[in-house]
Amino acid sequence: MTDETQRQAPTRRQMLTRIGVLAGSAGLYQAMTSLGHAMGTDFTGPPNLSGAKKGTRIVVLGAGLAGLLAAYELRKAGYTVQVLEFQNRGGGRNISLRGGDTLTELGGATQKVNFAPGNYINPGPWRIPYHHQGLLHYCQQFGVALEPFLQLNHNAYVHSSNAFDGKPVRYREYASDFFGYTAELIAKSIDQHKLDDAMTPDELAQMASAMRAWGGLNAEGKWAKGASSSLRRGFDKPQGGGMTGAPTYSDVFPRSEILKAHAWNDISFFERLDMQTTMFQPVGGMDNIGKGFMRQVHDIVRLNAKVSAIHQNDQGVQIQWNDMANGGAAQTTEADYCVCTIPLPILSQLDIQVSGPMKAAIAAVPYASSVKLGLEFKRRFWEEDEQIYGGISFTDQQISQISYPSAGTFTKGPAVLLGGYMFGPAAYDFAGMTPQERIENALKQGQKIHAQYRKEFSNGVSLAWSRMPWTLGCCSMWSEQARKAHYKDLVAIDNRIVLAGEHASYIGCWQEGAILSSLDAISRLHKRAMGAA
Amino acid sequence: MTDETQRQAPTRRQMLTRIGVLAGSAGLYQAMTSLGHAMGTDFTGPPNLSGAKKGTRIVVLGAGLAGLLAAYELRKAGYTVQVLEFQNRGGGRNISLRGGDTLTELGGATQKVNFAPGNYINPGPWRIPYHHQGLLHYCQQFGVALEPFLQLNHNAYVHSSNAFDGKPVRYREYASDFFGYTAELIAKSIDQHKLDDAMTPDELAQMASAMRAWGGLNAEGKWAKGASSSLRRGFDKPQGGGMTGAPTYSDVFPRSEILKAHAWNDISFFERLDMQTTMFQPVGGMDNIGKGFMRQVHDIVRLNAKVSAIHQNDQGVQIQWNDMANGGAAQTTEADYCVCTIPLPILSQLDIQVSGPMKAAIAAVPYASSVKLGLEFKRRFWEEDEQIYGGISFTDQQISQISYPSAGTFTKGPAVLLGGYMFGPAAYDFAGMTPQERIENALKQGQKIHAQYRKEFSNGVSLAWSRMPWTLGCCSMWSEQARKAHYKDLVAIDNRIVLAGEHASYIGCWQEGAILSSLDAISRLHKRAMGAA
Repeated sequence: MTDETQRQAPTRRQMLTRIGVLAGSAGLYQAMTSLGHAMGTDFTGPPNLSGAKKGTRIVVLGAGLAGLLAAYELRKAGYTVQVLEFQNRGGGRNISLRGGDTLTELGGATQKVNFAPGNYINPGPWRIPYHHQGLLHYCQQFGVALEPFLQLNHNAYVHSSNAFDGKPVRYREYASDFFGYTAELIAKSIDQHKLDDAMTPDELAQMASAMRAWGGLNAEGKWAKGASSSLRRGFDKPQGGGMTGAPTYSDVFPRSEILKAHAWNDISFFERLDMQTTMFQPVGGMDNIGKGFMRQVHDIVRLNAKVSAIHQNDQGVQIQWNDMANGGAAQTTEADYCVCTIPLPILSQLDIQVSGPMKAAIAAVPYASSVKLGLEFKRRFWEEDEQIYGGISFTDQQISQISYPSAGTFTKGPAVLLGGYMFGPAAYDFAGMTPQERIENALKQGQKIHAQYRKEFSNGVSLAWSRMPWTLGCCSMWSEQARKAHYKDLVAIDNRIVLAGEHASYIGCWQEGAILSSLDAISRLHKRAMGAA
Repeated sequence: MTDETQRQAPTRRQMLTRIGVLAGSAGLYQAMTSLGHAMGTDFTGPPNLSGAKKGTRIVVLGAGLAGLLAAYELRKAGYTVQVLEFQNRGGGRNISLRGGDTLTELGGATQKVNFAPGNYINPGPWRIPYHHQGLLHYCQQFGVALEPFLQLNHNAYVHSSNAFDGKPVRYREYASDFFGYTAELIAKSIDQHKLDDAMTPDELAQMASAMRAWGGLNAEGKWAKGASSSLRRGFDKPQGGGMTGAPTYSDVFPRSEILKAHAWNDISFFERLDMQTTMFQPVGGMDNIGKGFMRQVHDIVRLNAKVSAIHQNDQGVQIQWNDMANGGAAQTTEADYCVCTIPLPILSQLDIQVSGPMKAAIAAVPYASSVKLGLEFKRRFWEEDEQIYGGISFTDQQISQISYPSAGTFTKGPAVLLGGYMFGPAAYDFAGMTPQERIENALKQGQKIHAQYRKEFSNGVSLAWSRMPWTLGCCSMWSEQARKAHYKDLVAIDNRIVLAGEHASYIGCWQEGAILSSLDAISRLHKRAMGAA
């Protein structure tokens, strides 16, 4: 928006205030919806960078999504852009591993991926929530085809070492029983007048109806073996056709086992804003996003460029780097401004001329350790034997989950699932293992959920993010305290340098954070370059 | 299974009993899982019809899925099969409507479908649950490509005329608040020792943890405006990037409004066994299933054959029919046996020589009235303006729901959504309207959810199942009482005639009912023909 249009049009806030006054809060809510707010996204469209001074040079450090997007929009606006990237590929943590790929980690362990043609695992980002509108927008713009990512699957498993004899139960069984017992508890308490002072009589009556309907209680208000419970959790003998079609009901699990299992996080997982449906994934692998972004700017991306120093003065920035494709030859790139998207664990080790507060901010943000495992099996036994099509099984073991492929459903031949997704302490444990040990542990744990694991296993690969030399961690883990103390210092433009990336956002560990951070950073840098800020 | 193998192998029940004795109930459960039971499906594989006497003639009445499958399997087994079908197409209620199609209903109203090329609506069956393994099996076998049907969408709407000023709210907002208040009520009651006699102290402690985690309660155990609630229901200003990335929390709705809305059925809808994820739909329209089945047996299907009498004696069956493609010329088809899949409202009007009990059964099952509306809009405003990708919005108005297309997400140009799905009284109302009135009413109701409705509307079509002359209703609605009194009489082989179809199953109104009923009917008929039963 130019200054001129800003002056003429009422601001969004002014307009909302007017509508609010006229229409009451419901009117305000509706207005917010129709104005694009309350939509779960902070993306308002591509940046307006009009009026860029031709010839102004911007160097972008890092060819992950934040860097590539900055390069794309800045060049489009008329800036002269150069991107320097440490890896021999663009995309950053947006990555897919396929048969033939090689992965070398700190410490020297090297894995060759042996997946069958067409198979892949996304060891970094692997799903896109519906409200990540910035990323979805650029996927459209750059021709990246998307397909549904199957997240919630009622027929997948919930596994708790402490309940059900250590056997997995179906998500539908656990969730139905959990909801049913919860509803029963309230319905009974209302009947017994225990909640009379908690709600108005009207609310009590409504709540009693609600519990019966939502919980699937029987005519007596109980969660018990019968039609109503089996129509949620599944039958023992399912409904069929013809002479033998009559179903038989399934036993509900004892309430004590449901509670012992402690699996409520698993069934509320899908209610989390970031995990809600509808989700998407790129057709053919997450790295098709990185490739799509690279297509736009590949001609201004210098790969194998290892940055060692980021200097600036009143005249410009000077980037010192080594050309790793040519024996590490020392190079210098000069520019008027710098957008730096280098992950903080790396950046904190570089010689960077920024203010003390920004330096402190760079050092203040720990990165998550995370390990993901892709396991290839000879066939989709989870589909063929167990009717699990996509989605996630949860376990309280270190692997934490098994996620089944959303694509290729019903196909024959080898397929890859996510055999473990470790975060926190489990990730440290797994990162400390050899790749072979990681696979072995994933199989050992996974076979508690799928007895077919050993028999059907073909090969696997793991990626320990803390051992990737170009990021040294999975993503930023801002504490509330660090956020208060350092966030503004991290994102503020420091003379001629601005930082961008998921770490410079409130959507940490998501690609959308990189997108929105990048758009905000270049918008502010553009204003600075125009002399406006 | 032949008699010989039956004698040698222990029956499934015998085997389960043995395992149960040895391993306890958990062992039994695991064994049931690995033996293919407790899987939510009653499909055990294609029927074994070996040993058919060559030359035995079977006439199949009706070319819906039950009839086509019977024809396919019986011919494969060696029987001589002829199918007679009233319509000028196969597939029965498996149908898709596309631009150029014409739909004429009882009373004469004719609709020409004006959808853009590639667009369609499935006015009959439109989704396939993961546990409908019979149907899924034959889709694979007959080369019918499937894709995910997006069922649950947290960003779709819940609309109640009695709450929220009659405005729609997002599913995530309603569900999160409903769960949050429910959890808060229990957490508080436990704190106040109101539930001390309802559970053991251990269970009380576990339940208190469970409610906090599952409900997303804040540190004080409350469901209230803040980070924990906004991370479920959505933020006011969403999380963003860079300098302006800080989110602001959303207000929770008052508990009284959540209860007034009475929308608990909408948020438990997806917990119903038949509605759980993962669901599928055929790529390009549901009728690709009917077409896939037809490809197998098209050469033995006689279309435009209006059956008037089904007679039988000890020697065989005689079907009298009129060839509607040739001026209604009277025809007779003789066979040894008959598989009759004609919907009961039609069958009850025909001259059929079966026993009194079967006749009573045929007359005893009412069919649901149902109306579905397909509305084409100029663009996917639900995606572009409201970030709704697939899934269902619910309303307490007659249209009951709006379902957004699962396929073609992010594409430009006109698209079709399900503008209403009436069952019961609302269906009678809508069936009584002209097609134009139905569309007008659907728009009037739909615009309470989507303000863009009128502006973006292009054209629409409705199918009132009670007005389809070849079925006179949507599907069978067995009461428990009717089931007890008549089901066995309906499905028992009556001398040389056996009935099949969703009405002859415990999976009424689903294609799987037709599949499993058909497999059971032909398996029994085969035994009869072999002289074994």
